[in-house]
Amino acid sequence: MLAVVKPTAAPGAEVREVPIPKYGDNEVLVKVKVAGICGTDVHIYDWNNWAQGRIKPPLVPGHEFCGEVVATGKDVTAVKEGDFVSAEMHVACGKCYQCRIGEAHICQNVTIIGIDSNGAFAEYVVIPESNIWKIDPSIPAEYAAILDPLGNAVYTVLSGEIAGKSIAIVGCGPIGLFAIAVARACGASTVFAIEVNENRRDLARKMKADFVLDPSKENVAEIVKDKTHGIGVDVTAEMSGNANGINLGFEILRMGGRASLLGTPKGDVSINLAKSIIFKGATVHGIHGRLMYKTWFQMTELLRAGRLELHPAITDKIAMKDFSSGMERLKTGAASKVLVYPNGVR
Amino acid sequence: MLAVVKPTAAPGAEVREVPIPKYGDNEVLVKVKVAGICGTDVHIYDWNNWAQGRIKPPLVPGHEFCGEVVATGKDVTAVKEGDFVSAEMHVACGKCYQCRIGEAHICQNVTIIGIDSNGAFAEYVVIPESNIWKIDPSIPAEYAAILDPLGNAVYTVLSGEIAGKSIAIVGCGPIGLFAIAVARACGASTVFAIEVNENRRDLARKMKADFVLDPSKENVAEIVKDKTHGIGVDVTAEMSGNANGINLGFEILRMGGRASLLGTPKGDVSINLAKSIIFKGATVHGIHGRLMYKTWFQMTELLRAGRLELHPAITDKIAMKDFSSGMERLKTGAASKVLVYPNGVR
Amino acid sequence: MLAVVKPTAAPGAEVREVPIPKYGDNEVLVKVKVAGICGTDVHIYDWNNWAQGRIKPPLVPGHEFCGEVVATGKDVTAVKEGDFVSAEMHVACGKCYQCRIGEAHICQNVTIIGIDSNGAFAEYVVIPESNIWKIDPSIPAEYAAILDPLGNAVYTVLSGEIAGKSIAIVGCGPIGLFAIAVARACGASTVFAIEVNENRRDLARKMKADFVLDPSKENVAEIVKDKTHGIGVDVTAEMSGNANGINLGFEILRMGGRASLLGTPKGDVSINLAKSIIFKGATVHGIHGRLMYKTWFQMTELLRAGRLELHPAITDKIAMKDFSSGMERLKTGAASKVLVYPNGVR
Amino acid sequence: MLAVVKPTAAPGAEVREVPIPKYGDNEVLVKVKVAGICGTDVHIYDWNNWAQGRIKPPLVPGHEFCGEVVATGKDVTAVKEGDFVSAEMHVACGKCYQCRIGEAHICQNVTIIGIDSNGAFAEYVVIPESNIWKIDPSIPAEYAAILDPLGNAVYTVLSGEIAGKSIAIVGCGPIGLFAIAVARACGASTVFAIEVNENRRDLARKMKADFVLDPSKENVAEIVKDKTHGIGVDVTAEMSGNANGINLGFEILRMGGRASLLGTPKGDVSINLAKSIIFKGATVHGIHGRLMYKTWFQMTELLRAGRLELHPAITDKIAMKDFSSGMERLKTGAASKVLVYPNGVR
Repeated sequence: MLAVVKPTAAPGAEVREVPIPKYGDNEVLVKVKVAGICGTDVHIYDWNNWAQGRIKPPLVPGHEFCGEVVATGKDVTAVKEGDFVSAEMHVACGKCYQCRIGEAHICQNVTIIGIDSNGAFAEYVVIPESNIWKIDPSIPAEYAAILDPLGNAVYTVLSGEIAGKSIAIVGCGPIGLFAIAVARACGASTVFAIEVNENRRDLARKMKADFVLDPSKENVAEIVKDKTHGIGVDVTAEMSGNANGINLGFEILRMGGRASLLGTPKGDVSINLAKSIIFKGATVHGIHGRLMYKTWFQMTELLRAGRLELHPAITDKIAMKDFSSGMERLKTGAASKVLVYPNGVR
Repeated sequence: MLAVVKPTAAPGAEVREVPIPKYGDNEVLVKVKVAGICGTDVHIYDWNNWAQGRIKPPLVPGHEFCGEVVATGKDVTAVKEGDFVSAEMHVACGKCYQCRIGEAHICQNVTIIGIDSNGAFAEYVVIPESNIWKIDPSIPAEYAAILDPLGNAVYTVLSGEIAGKSIAIVGCGPIGLFAIAVARACGASTVFAIEVNENRRDLARKMKADFVLDPSKENVAEIVKDKTHGIGVDVTAEMSGNANGINLGFEILRMGGRASLLGTPKGDVSINLAKSIIFKGATVHGIHGRLMYKTWFQMTELLRAGRLELHPAITDKIAMKDFSSGMERLKTGAASKVLVYPNGVR
Repeated sequence: MLAVVKPTAAPGAEVREVPIPKYGDNEVLVKVKVAGICGTDVHIYDWNNWAQGRIKPPLVPGHEFCGEVVATGKDVTAVKEGDFVSAEMHVACGKCYQCRIGEAHICQNVTIIGIDSNGAFAEYVVIPESNIWKIDPSIPAEYAAILDPLGNAVYTVLSGEIAGKSIAIVGCGPIGLFAIAVARACGASTVFAIEVNENRRDLARKMKADFVLDPSKENVAEIVKDKTHGIGVDVTAEMSGNANGINLGFEILRMGGRASLLGTPKGDVSINLAKSIIFKGATVHGIHGRLMYKTWFQMTELLRAGRLELHPAITDKIAMKDFSSGMERLKTGAASKVLVYPNGVR
Repeated sequence: MLAVVKPTAAPGAEVREVPIPKYGDNEVLVKVKVAGICGTDVHIYDWNNWAQGRIKPPLVPGHEFCGEVVATGKDVTAVKEGDFVSAEMHVACGKCYQCRIGEAHICQNVTIIGIDSNGAFAEYVVIPESNIWKIDPSIPAEYAAILDPLGNAVYTVLSGEIAGKSIAIVGCGPIGLFAIAVARACGASTVFAIEVNENRRDLARKMKADFVLDPSKENVAEIVKDKTHGIGVDVTAEMSGNANGINLGFEILRMGGRASLLGTPKGDVSINLAKSIIFKGATVHGIHGRLMYKTWFQMTELLRAGRLELHPAITDKIAMKDFSSGMERLKTGAASKVLVYPNGVR
């Protein structure tokens, strides 16, 4: 089969022939229909510091996808040939403290398909039955392909109350854009989208944020205060991973508000804890992955019910052979979510 | 001024001249624009057992309304002349255990304006500053008039998670109808409306419930099971106060689900606790009133943001002189929410 | 080996030779040190209606125990020979909705070892690795043997806030007695134990309940009101399964309180929902089993830290050959928790 | 009467004659029995930057105390002459968003008695009825005098689950010491006390922390890991306000743990958010003051039930004339909680 391969410990990747992967008794072989490119894939492609410490080439990356079950191991009962599926690519150990108390999303021994083993930028991928996710056929394939980042957005927005609440989404990459849709669908009263990049602000408008603000030019704190009766936002969803964004997110948070942090800053961030968290009586949630599998059920149901309109965030659909050009579009900021079609674009 | 008056301890009411009420240093005089008739008002009108035990005629009833501030006591700072307002009519003592821990909605010493003292079926009503609620002028007056029952619906639906969850609303009087809108606005994936009365089922369809079911003719348990992958609903919002409805609501609730009970049954209800609650691992919330004032903020913000379409539930708009005919329309089940205009219909 | 066997579909049981059970690749063979007799075992012994519908003889009952690992299947990594262990005997399917959202304690497809398959009233028992529970050797064997009912008590008491709160424990069988200890250890300010049986009230006093009340002779509602500043208890832990007890538990609950229901009544219970739950703004939790495995961690840590003194509730220690006499002591109410030693009393 | 007075905008204070304060219709005059010196009082005494920006001399400081009601305004009903009382010294406005949703402890317009108006280092103090707190006479006066900082400890420890959980208390000033007692009383399984000062570590041992660690000499992270089965603590209670302490507190927190931050650092703190909060899936609570009045009820009930032994933390009892020497003992670290007796030591 053809797959995107990171062949050696160096920047770049290539599309080449590799064997179709074998599946075990508890595994499922899936023919990939659509796969999404994540920021992490850009790190692997660029071979940044994080990638150098984690990735063991050769590797087939790709951890967002959907496809069709083409074969199942003999002990598999959850899905059958022909089923439309995606998967949670974080494979939890099932035995650590976190796994045993229902917090598998922060398993101490997690391995990630597409990072620690071969993933979905390929014609076929193998998934353990425990992690396969059957999808209602009414859900569009381009949405089914991005449940991983959509799940990040759903978990972030829904990690506390949102109905009738105001929210500031700081950083409008794909997950931030999805968060706009999720917040609106779940009853947020006012959605502020905060983003320095003009392309992304355009997309945020298309996602129907109530206010789209450029912190490099506008006095975001003043505007938010003005639009929230002087109170500040009930919720900050931090998706920029940028120190300025993080601090701005705390600044505009109301006394007693919630800040859910997903964006991962490089290195330390300097924070006025007294003002931003302690005296503010704020609650801060560290958000990693998606709840296994509560978030998956909520997200799938929102999609099945037609509550989420995500198309503006999907800017590119490319054939797998054009993987490198998709990478370039991402790196220049021209693209938001890029979808890859390993078995041909439909 | 003119007001609806319950003159004596007997059925009926009359519209007659009464003095404009006096206001104290911490009180607000409001010119009533629109008032809503509640089921409780029907009980007072009919002089049922509950009313005989609670009401001390003469009384001006009416505890749902909106209007304009026309005068304020000298210590009032929260509102000023000309403000568009409604009010929480449950006046909490502020000193009991419940009030001191933030549960004023279940104050041990509550008094209710329109039940224990003169209310809003009148050209003017007096409200303590603590209970006045200023409203954004963009909110339609017919919605501002019904914040009391809308608050019941909002509190019921939002007393636990709703986003991406299925909900069964049992009983489609005005509050049940409002609950359909609230559930949809806050991300419910599937809304089942269950109601024996055909008129109310028609309204439930207009409120856009996903499935509108007649438990007197349809096998609700089977249909709900079928539409929820065999799991049952995540949430039951009980608004019928009917023993059959209550038990059906528990029957269709999923293992681990939430039942929020608002409808008040007469007398005891026989329940299979083991099956309905204990083995089911269910959570049951008794819902009384609305959270003071968390629910008010959430509700007002949902309205201001245009997230709620409630018009189908408002079936009648009448002049105050026609109060008795509104009562009759309610008692025959022909009407749902009846709005009364003490100062003329607009 | 010797085991207690329910040989046929009739009352009674016998102690006889049976083969040592085989264990699979993912299973653990445990030499039973101590096993506890549960009320459910009495039902099986007596062959009541429930038992007739559920139990398929021949069966070795017993679902509370501790022992030593003597052999492990080839895929087992969680424990090794010589480990001191107990087990969660509810075996969850791992695939249903409840299991996938972290609510395995209410798995739709649960099977129970000792009820649906051979259990722990035997020299040896086989446990799947997923359900084995390794125990700190510092925990006494007689406590390690009763983690199943202790877990019921811990889950019930801790299903909401308890620190600085008053609690009424209605019904003082073994789980009720354990609940007294758990409540005190976790900061309950006042513990009321309510029980009609004199023996049990004596034990409740030994467990250090603050007030031990006999509802057949004392005005419990008045006493509770008096001792709680007129407010009522913050928490009711219902462990009687008796209709009068259940209603009393609601009556003495404060406005806004929590009732956690564990005791399982036979048939329907008639409840004044309006007064007991709805107007009271109460929260009711149905409690089934123990959280898998959050409760197990909390309980084990409380025991390891020496926070729980449970000895008064353990009234009998018998050799397995005396199983029937233990049953009789339970049925007359003379005994509370009866421990069985299949490999000899130590 | 005699009072401690900060006479001018400069370091120091003096004990001198001032008029007995007048009380209004809704106010209570209290004869002070015992008052506690807080770290904030040291700041005021020293006239540090914070004090220079906030305090308007002349001022009678003092915001921890207990005493006896000697007179009440005509509208006061909550207490009467002779009652034993303390008070919440944060006076909330009652009208801001936070106050109206039950979060008065983070009122936007709060004023603090003893900081913004005359306080309790005096023979008499005036308290608004809304803030007076009646105390059971069985509670010792030296405990009743320190409900303010004890409330900080109770709110911090109980801002999430603690029963059967491990906790690290970072910083063992008086509030940290109280937190040890609260955690133990509420079922914490293992209490780690972390403190660089030797005197304070001695006190932490007397408060019965399970492990008392010196981060300047011991490898706290290793020790905590070893004593928590490699998992880390469930809860960190940050009470040092020191950047190293804060980061250590996050380091030893388990995946999915809770960090409740009370200690207020000067200036910014540099934090590795990705590692400390985001990937860890941590929950962080900013803790300000005490919940009004939920914490007060919990705390008072814990004291009334005799669950808290706080004496080791009370190191000094002095007459008001010796106020300055108490200050010196605090500033050298020789004292922990210093109690002042304005009407003579008893």
